Amino acid sequence: MGLNPEQTIIGFIGIGVMGKSMAEQLRKAGYPLHVYTRTASKAEDLVAEGAVWYASPAALAKASDVIITMVGYPKDVEEIYFGEDGIIANAKAGAYLIDMTTSSPLLAERIYRAATDKGLHALDAPVSGGDIGAREGKLSIMVGGDKDDFATVLPLFERLGTNIVLQGKAGAGQHTKMCNQIAIASNMIGVCEALAYATTTGLDPELVLKSISTGAAGSWSLSNLGPRIIAGNFEPGFYVKHFIKDMGIALEVAKEVGLDTPGLALAYSLYKRLAEMGFDEKGTQALYKVLVH
Amino acid sequence: MGLNPEQTIIGFIGIGVMGKSMAEQLRKAGYPLHVYTRTASKAEDLVAEGAVWYASPAALAKASDVIITMVGYPKDVEEIYFGEDGIIANAKAGAYLIDMTTSSPLLAERIYRAATDKGLHALDAPVSGGDIGAREGKLSIMVGGDKDDFATVLPLFERLGTNIVLQGKAGAGQHTKMCNQIAIASNMIGVCEALAYATTTGLDPELVLKSISTGAAGSWSLSNLGPRIIAGNFEPGFYVKHFIKDMGIALEVAKEVGLDTPGLALAYSLYKRLAEMGFDEKGTQALYKVLVH
Repeated sequence: MGLNPEQTIIGFIGIGVMGKSMAEQLRKAGYPLHVYTRTASKAEDLVAEGAVWYASPAALAKASDVIITMVGYPKDVEEIYFGEDGIIANAKAGAYLIDMTTSSPLLAERIYRAATDKGLHALDAPVSGGDIGAREGKLSIMVGGDKDDFATVLPLFERLGTNIVLQGKAGAGQHTKMCNQIAIASNMIGVCEALAYATTTGLDPELVLKSISTGAAGSWSLSNLGPRIIAGNFEPGFYVKHFIKDMGIALEVAKEVGLDTPGLALAYSLYKRLAEMGFDEKGTQALYKVLVH
Repeated sequence: MGLNPEQTIIGFIGIGVMGKSMAEQLRKAGYPLHVYTRTASKAEDLVAEGAVWYASPAALAKASDVIITMVGYPKDVEEIYFGEDGIIANAKAGAYLIDMTTSSPLLAERIYRAATDKGLHALDAPVSGGDIGAREGKLSIMVGGDKDDFATVLPLFERLGTNIVLQGKAGAGQHTKMCNQIAIASNMIGVCEALAYATTTGLDPELVLKSISTGAAGSWSLSNLGPRIIAGNFEPGFYVKHFIKDMGIALEVAKEVGLDTPGLALAYSLYKRLAEMGFDEKGTQALYKVLVH
């Protein structure tokens, strides 16, 4: 099987904000696109543009050469892959299964083993770069799995991202995404505390950003989310509820491997408190509200 | 008094790694340079180049138009300004006093009040940018004090830095530097935990950096200190012992203004533990050793 557009049918499961843009990129590149998503209405635009709608993951899996999943939580991934109506039981021999959901590394390993046993090729390939990265095909894609499989689907990844790295064997993509979320977690505390300190001590936070954002305190979060915090804009780029999910996965892995992650644990508890305050549908920068309210 | 080079005698107190490079910049710009530092040998190079050595802060203060201090700890600042042999008691009427040490905002306010009472002009102007920034005259300078005083000494700041911001009244420079350190503190935990997770789960940390350092997890610390951690290089850019001092000041202020800073408190406790492990003369990236040892 080659992965030439037009000869490779892509089945895309999970048409959310990210998934829709990613599926759209692949369709534009010429790949015949099959779609399934829990809320059918979300796929309407893609279907209007020529994508084929399937009523179940099983039906889609049977008809696709490459199956990409971009769903919500590990339990959704588990259901989509291992359920009766799932991908493992229904995919064509030799098909490529790519989970791009941010999910559990251990689950990724399980999918890989089950897929391999059935003559299927599985990769875990979570992304970062958000809705804008997805829309512009500029995601960072962190991949775990076999080298040959990676090489085969690389042209497809190249439609979705610009920073594509095979990180290692199955699960390594998810582990790398966890590193990404761990680094963000504590940094978000620092960004919010710095701005909370600024406003509480009577500084002008915009002037403070001017002094500190280009030096050793500089970060993507400080430069991109700092101004939103100052403007009182807590709308989601990245959802609090999803970040809590990701940190929960990372904490579980850390516990299993015996790694102490006090910063991650603190961030998790602060974000849980934020969710309890009613901010779970807001953006991660809303953490500021835990400190100043 | 104008601040033209050649007509303005600068008295520089504190010839450490930072102070020496900064004094050197001013001498090169043509300002007559007076120096005092506790360990006289540290000033030898500057004296050989034409700086005038003074045996006490008092003697230097009496002979200088602008007095710049770049010493170690708030207690050193207090002694240099308020001691019997200190600047406030001995400076010439109308002199400009600029403390560039990272020190207590409350102490900066006290210096400002005492200076104003005596017809002196005081500014707090801590910096970031490290030894390299000092050597290249590319520091970020965060200034607190009166607008007119800031305008008067600006040409001098422009020899030392490229990002020079008057942040507000006396103390605001120090408060801004605290924001800088607060943002760094939690971020360092995130950087170290992310790399500790990477190595513990069997990833290649250099590949991980390739995936995560340019996106939402990206930061100055991740890009600049991450590679040092991976290389096992814990030599100081910025000393653990100085960072502990700075975080201690920030925690004190936060307590006084009633601001909860759990990330800063966690970082402080982890760095204290690191110092107890014998790493207080190492660089801040050594925090990694608290997590993986």
